[in-house]
Amino acid sequence: MNKIEHIGIAVQNLEKANLIYTQILGSEPYKTEQVASEKVMTSFFRCGESKIELLAATDETSVIAGFIQKRGEGMHHIAFAVEDIEAEMNRLRQAGFTLLNETPKPGADNKLVCFVHPKSTNGVLIELCQERR
Amino acid sequence: MNKIEHIGIAVQNLEKANLIYTQILGSEPYKTEQVASEKVMTSFFRCGESKIELLAATDETSVIAGFIQKRGEGMHHIAFAVEDIEAEMNRLRQAGFTLLNETPKPGADNKLVCFVHPKSTNGVLIELCQERR
Repeated sequence: MNKIEHIGIAVQNLEKANLIYTQILGSEPYKTEQVASEKVMTSFFRCGESKIELLAATDETSVIAGFIQKRGEGMHHIAFAVEDIEAEMNRLRQAGFTLLNETPKPGADNKLVCFVHPKSTNGVLIELCQERR
Repeated sequence: MNKIEHIGIAVQNLEKANLIYTQILGSEPYKTEQVASEKVMTSFFRCGESKIELLAATDETSVIAGFIQKRGEGMHHIAFAVEDIEAEMNRLRQAGFTLLNETPKPGADNKLVCFVHPKSTNGVLIELCQERR
């Protein structure tokens, strides 16, 4: 894992949360992007070499809507940047971690992603994240 | 905020969690440190310019024990590195955020820290973190 690519935060209202995180971080989101497959609208803030990603559900069947209903707003996942996502997926699979998708899938921000089940990582939803080439 | 200084993860058993995160991150913790005032034992892993901090309670009255009892293991806080913690505290206070300590307090890893109440930050416990000079 090269770095923390981003931290994903589940929010109820993206516009209000954008204002709050603009105040905290001292700069506005550099991008807003819909990820239709995940039924979320996202916004991204830069913070050093990492990003803060706010995620709001666009539909009540979105996993983000389910997360907020169960746990409230808050930190949803940590994404680590990897050079070769298939190699990292194999490495973690062989080490006994449970992957939530068997092949890399397209994520926000021009990435290929894979999620690791929080049961094998002390309750933390981990995302592997490779720049699409 | 200059960068994500670290992500704090609440764990039940520090030794077991150290093994898991050594596998995930591909390197061992560079430091283990007790923070007596918070009744926690911590370990730190490097990841790019940031760190992953695992926190385990040393006493059932620790906030980490309470957090795990209520929500289970998982992400506990995001810490942002700041140059001047008092200036950042004043800035956030004036912007209407609720600070959990009125003056900077000593944290792990030779830092002065201040926590921001998650009610004002979409459910995220945010730590401001300044290197002690």
